[in-house]
Amino acid sequence: MNVNGKYYRTVWMEEGKVMMIEQNLLPFNFKIFTSDNYIETCMAIKTMIVRGAGAIGATAGFAMAQAFIQYNDNKDEILKAKADIEATRPTARNLFYATERVFNAGLISVENAINEANKIADEDVEAGKKIGEYGDTLIKDTMNILTHCNAGWLGFVDYGSALSVVYAAHNSGKNVFVYVDETRPRSQGARLTAWELYNENIPHVIVPDNAGAFLASKGKIDIMIVGADRIAANGDAANKIGTFEKAIIAKTFGIPFYVAAPLATFDINCKSGDAIIIEERDEDEVLYMTGLNENNKLSKVLICNEGSKAFNPAFDVTPASYITGIITENGIINANENDIRNLF
Amino acid sequence: MNVNGKYYRTVWMEEGKVMMIEQNLLPFNFKIFTSDNYIETCMAIKTMIVRGAGAIGATAGFAMAQAFIQYNDNKDEILKAKADIEATRPTARNLFYATERVFNAGLISVENAINEANKIADEDVEAGKKIGEYGDTLIKDTMNILTHCNAGWLGFVDYGSALSVVYAAHNSGKNVFVYVDETRPRSQGARLTAWELYNENIPHVIVPDNAGAFLASKGKIDIMIVGADRIAANGDAANKIGTFEKAIIAKTFGIPFYVAAPLATFDINCKSGDAIIIEERDEDEVLYMTGLNENNKLSKVLICNEGSKAFNPAFDVTPASYITGIITENGIINANENDIRNLF
Repeated sequence: MNVNGKYYRTVWMEEGKVMMIEQNLLPFNFKIFTSDNYIETCMAIKTMIVRGAGAIGATAGFAMAQAFIQYNDNKDEILKAKADIEATRPTARNLFYATERVFNAGLISVENAINEANKIADEDVEAGKKIGEYGDTLIKDTMNILTHCNAGWLGFVDYGSALSVVYAAHNSGKNVFVYVDETRPRSQGARLTAWELYNENIPHVIVPDNAGAFLASKGKIDIMIVGADRIAANGDAANKIGTFEKAIIAKTFGIPFYVAAPLATFDINCKSGDAIIIEERDEDEVLYMTGLNENNKLSKVLICNEGSKAFNPAFDVTPASYITGIITENGIINANENDIRNLF
Repeated sequence: MNVNGKYYRTVWMEEGKVMMIEQNLLPFNFKIFTSDNYIETCMAIKTMIVRGAGAIGATAGFAMAQAFIQYNDNKDEILKAKADIEATRPTARNLFYATERVFNAGLISVENAINEANKIADEDVEAGKKIGEYGDTLIKDTMNILTHCNAGWLGFVDYGSALSVVYAAHNSGKNVFVYVDETRPRSQGARLTAWELYNENIPHVIVPDNAGAFLASKGKIDIMIVGADRIAANGDAANKIGTFEKAIIAKTFGIPFYVAAPLATFDINCKSGDAIIIEERDEDEVLYMTGLNENNKLSKVLICNEGSKAFNPAFDVTPASYITGIITENGIINANENDIRNLF
């Protein structure tokens, strides 16, 4: 997508360096982070300089390629690097998908590893575009869409998943209005999704996560579309904490609830959501908040009672029975084992 | 309750002045705000220096008494003051309950108005204590309780409603653990409820509002107890935005969902929740966050994409069918018209 008139991807590789939009600083600053080696790239994933299922996957692929550049002759080091990369964000399926592919490609040559990593990134872009086109068929001329977290182009290499549907619908001339869940504790909705929609001039409003049932009960939401970090073989979908809560609200009020995700997010070796590891993150993400202060400087403030602890699960799992359908680059399927197996 | 070893109420009157704990500054600073006249007291309610159903009610009663002190001979001015006070926070039933009582008392004498306002505050304290005792009968020896917003002593004159149950259970030797919903956008859970529980040494953890379905699905929550700002004759209950969402989660997972509130919160002239006015507050409450910065100074930071708008409904209405029971100072009742009419 374009930022200040220039085309960007979320992450890309240039002469062995991995370049990525520094998402930690958005929406306040737009900067590119350069990682010289796989360890720095791991750090970037862990500290969420890059985040979002697809973007993490592509970055992990590039990190794996960097490991081959660094340790071409030392398979032990490369295996260690693979384990390091896979330990950065355990919930994201795309990460493992990418490290495995680039690892296998690298066994042939370093060049081959780099090509495979680039291919994964390109496939992500293509998948996002297709997801948008398929998803657009669900959107009526005028529609209020609620989304949670950021499943936009920042969460992928380009286009995104849930927001790709919004972009496609908007570009085909439909009147879409987006309720953007703030998405505490890291506020990816209020920061990243709102930033994306604002830049594309798509009408939207940020709402506290707490407002979901209120909006739904007032008939304000026609459809909910979210992304996913990992989808099990039975259709259970792990996504940002609060997604399951929204799915329950959707079911209660008869609102269609769609998950938009590329094939790379599916983990057909994972039988059900029970087997998905839920990452717990640092309590400081709940206790502190970073934002722009009066002097236009980024400042981190304590927003809770000092001394109290916080619990910070990063994801939850929405059972397949709550999901109306899954929008993939190969079409819209039902969230069940049969439809998912047929995809592969 | 005690703060730093000294007994405080949330709000009280001294020689015509209304004194109140400056809840806007908590948990970072503990200060007493002094209001010299009813207009300042209205401002204090509006800007949430004082907040919470019971505390707003008592403060409104004191404001009404101040109006009689100021305009004893001018009934027009007093009626205007009554309208001003009632316009500060339209959702809280306790506010109207208090202005009406003090207004009628003031028709006899100014002294009588002051006495009636003090009586309302005393009744609030007594009701809170009783609510705790009745609610304690619902709590088992070991129990995980989820609460939303702040229905503690800060939300009343003392004791509180939902947290009064927690205090009573804790004081009777039970092992209670409290999951404290952060309660965006104003974070009354993370700031006020956590502050209260921390000061009373009650085990608790702050959770993002988004974590409710996750915690419930993992069997971590045994009971939910919340307060209310207004309860209609049929048992529908208005409370802080997000309460309805939690009630839906509770119903989905078979978790008992209780509302704790004194009789002053019931509005038997209000047929159902549909008739309750939902206050919309300034979008800045969502877009900005105040907290302690690196230099231990309060700082307000922009936490959302600049340029995006926010929607900020302050309350939602939980239908009676989602409420397991209502804990009042006269006992625990079912959320239905018959039980509610029998209370009065």
